Amino acid sequence: MAQKPSIPKGTRDFNALEVAKRSYIIETIKAQFERYGFEPIETPSFENSETLMGKYGDEGDRLIFKILNSGDYLSKVSEEDYNSKSENVLTSKISEKALRYDLTVPFARYVVQHQNEIAFPFKRYQIQPVWRADRPQKGRFREFYQCDADVVGSKSLFQEVEFIQLYDAVFTTLKLEGVTIKINNRKILSGIAEVIGAQDKLIDFTVALDKLDKIGEEKVKAEMRSKGISEDGISQLQPLFTLEGDFGEQVERLKSILGTSDIGLKGIEELEFINSAISTLGLNTATLQLDVTLARGLNYYTGAIFEVSAPEGVDMGSIGGGGRYDDLTSIFGKPDTSGVGISFGLDRIYLVLEELNLFPETIANTTKVLFINFGDKEALACLKAVTQLRKEGVKAELYPDSAKMKKQMTYANRRHIPFVVLVGEQELASESFTLKNMDTGEQQTLDMSALLKALK
Amino acid sequence: MAQKPSIPKGTRDFNALEVAKRSYIIETIKAQFERYGFEPIETPSFENSETLMGKYGDEGDRLIFKILNSGDYLSKVSEEDYNSKSENVLTSKISEKALRYDLTVPFARYVVQHQNEIAFPFKRYQIQPVWRADRPQKGRFREFYQCDADVVGSKSLFQEVEFIQLYDAVFTTLKLEGVTIKINNRKILSGIAEVIGAQDKLIDFTVALDKLDKIGEEKVKAEMRSKGISEDGISQLQPLFTLEGDFGEQVERLKSILGTSDIGLKGIEELEFINSAISTLGLNTATLQLDVTLARGLNYYTGAIFEVSAPEGVDMGSIGGGGRYDDLTSIFGKPDTSGVGISFGLDRIYLVLEELNLFPETIANTTKVLFINFGDKEALACLKAVTQLRKEGVKAELYPDSAKMKKQMTYANRRHIPFVVLVGEQELASESFTLKNMDTGEQQTLDMSALLKALK
Repeated sequence: MAQKPSIPKGTRDFNALEVAKRSYIIETIKAQFERYGFEPIETPSFENSETLMGKYGDEGDRLIFKILNSGDYLSKVSEEDYNSKSENVLTSKISEKALRYDLTVPFARYVVQHQNEIAFPFKRYQIQPVWRADRPQKGRFREFYQCDADVVGSKSLFQEVEFIQLYDAVFTTLKLEGVTIKINNRKILSGIAEVIGAQDKLIDFTVALDKLDKIGEEKVKAEMRSKGISEDGISQLQPLFTLEGDFGEQVERLKSILGTSDIGLKGIEELEFINSAISTLGLNTATLQLDVTLARGLNYYTGAIFEVSAPEGVDMGSIGGGGRYDDLTSIFGKPDTSGVGISFGLDRIYLVLEELNLFPETIANTTKVLFINFGDKEALACLKAVTQLRKEGVKAELYPDSAKMKKQMTYANRRHIPFVVLVGEQELASESFTLKNMDTGEQQTLDMSALLKALK
Repeated sequence: MAQKPSIPKGTRDFNALEVAKRSYIIETIKAQFERYGFEPIETPSFENSETLMGKYGDEGDRLIFKILNSGDYLSKVSEEDYNSKSENVLTSKISEKALRYDLTVPFARYVVQHQNEIAFPFKRYQIQPVWRADRPQKGRFREFYQCDADVVGSKSLFQEVEFIQLYDAVFTTLKLEGVTIKINNRKILSGIAEVIGAQDKLIDFTVALDKLDKIGEEKVKAEMRSKGISEDGISQLQPLFTLEGDFGEQVERLKSILGTSDIGLKGIEELEFINSAISTLGLNTATLQLDVTLARGLNYYTGAIFEVSAPEGVDMGSIGGGGRYDDLTSIFGKPDTSGVGISFGLDRIYLVLEELNLFPETIANTTKVLFINFGDKEALACLKAVTQLRKEGVKAELYPDSAKMKKQMTYANRRHIPFVVLVGEQELASESFTLKNMDTGEQQTLDMSALLKALK
């Protein structure tokens, strides 16, 4: 019985042009990753459930796609467990594997599992799909690629400096000029919380501060009050709400707020090191900007926090992010391994390049020439020429059937093939080829070597 | 609590060198696919279960990885169904999606779903992972890549001819010379079955014939007898067991066997067309060979059947296969769409190239130069040079910490980095760089432009 074909919600088919555009972004990122000394690894699409579960919070656990055990999966379930009819009890009994939710946890697992084969500091990149059972919505998918580069095994701040350069290099190569690389430091957020006496409310405090752009100063203050942050503390924060001037001036203001906090001043010191190095080295088209409201997965990062936003005028949210995490691999038994990494948001970068019309025109990279088929004898002669052209690297096709001319020309047009070659009786006799430019309609009759020259 | 990290059985991590080797094969295949006019598509990793189930036989259905529904997946299960405690009843209630089992069924689904956007004949290639819950064993994995090229929408035999050329082109480019491309035709098998009066036993007959290489003539005959093929029929087969000579001679013998079968003679005619075209066009390093015992997924193929075996002396089974199927898309509501396609076995090709030492030496493609770190001031100067080198396309790294010289050199060695640069106080003062060749130990002191020239 015929089925009406469809794909699961939140997933996508990609046609040739879409694959080409996505590859263009991925290959650009990959090439820069490699120039910066990162090496590729790949990990399996599914991991043992215990590798993933509990690493992303309760919400994350819910959004992880679980794979049903193969075979008689109910035979492992006890009578009692089955009778509970509870997902909490059943899931771990009937599912032992789960699809990758991000690339970071598999990377941490990889580092620990292969630590004896790895030369540290380990600079790895990984570009693979991940899966999340999120409610699908515009620009959010259940299967999407992550493009990550991380270093583990060194606390050097030069790495933060290089990641900023790497962002700049990638976006400059993509001709996406004018992105803003926002930077903050978890230690500064901790310092501020300390100074205003809200260490125990660090998350409430940063969640509220993170909304400054969206809801404005008064509402942020109201939220802080509602979370029990004192009026006195909030008034100490006042300079944060009006942090102006360049990087250096903002840092000076922060220093005055953080004067009594060791950890806060350590954060400032790190920021200054990074900013000073970047000033010396220069960026091509990106701008580095301090943003003390930036928090991003705070529980995770311990030092620098990065986020990249699209050029002004493009409404897209962040197109990249990252930061330093001091203890990622300890969950797998390897403590004290500092890491720092960044990620590129492929789908959003795609949308931005599309909106700004920045994909190269040549991207479709399709077949260059179609040989029209006038019958088996002519077709075989054409295939000889096609074979030679392919050997020389020219993308060439023979229309497989001796269909009506119009049908074959329509095929060439729909495929955006720029040239066709016609070999009829006359050409066959004189071993020549009539080459037609599909744009201009221009025709010329050539021998094989001239044809090769024209198409190469 | 620390977990001992591991990955699910049948899956693999790939390190940088393994990724590079796999990419080398994939990129070679991709480049040839594109020269031959194939366009890439990508489909989601998981499909709706009804798209996949029932397409691969009972055994296939069992080997498909099913994804557990998200959220309260038990709420959709009726009391009665739950109480059945039967996988047959439960699975479809708690799982609506499944991981791709091959690329062919998703391709058929794609063609039907997007038929209005597609210019037919549609030449597509697809290189993506698939998943099978097979018992893992040497060389068989639960996650592996398929590399497929197919054309749908034309019955032209020139396509079979081009696929043979494509196999030859890929293996020649990989320097894997001397592969055998075996060809058969389903119509010939049908014809033979007809002639010996075993039409109703076509599968039994071909399954037995397929074993000729492994178990020999007598055992094949015994198996045929046990399946009820008549003694008379078996004796008519005698010429098959001793089919010798070149392609043309074998075809003549076949003709004498198949004289009374229209479908058999049609198969012969197709073979002759293909062989004659290939003789005219020539192959680079592969050989085309008729193999009437070749059956491969017989229920599926309707015309040509291909299989590629590694060069003599390499014990590897088939490294590629394919054929023509006349009615793939009808399961999704689009009848009469003939297709033909081939597939490359990435994992096996990898093993063959490894065994024959055919991977290019330059494949690791690692960082070219490591700048040794003698402290922040020197490191910043190094990073300036590194930045310039990267801009010029040189893969360059700065060791992030001012660790002991020995440690940094060990890192360079373990990473197989061929050059290091030393910038100490003296070089800093004179804006020069001491470049050391890690192989020869040779050192030279250069200015920036000479350094760039030496490394580019």
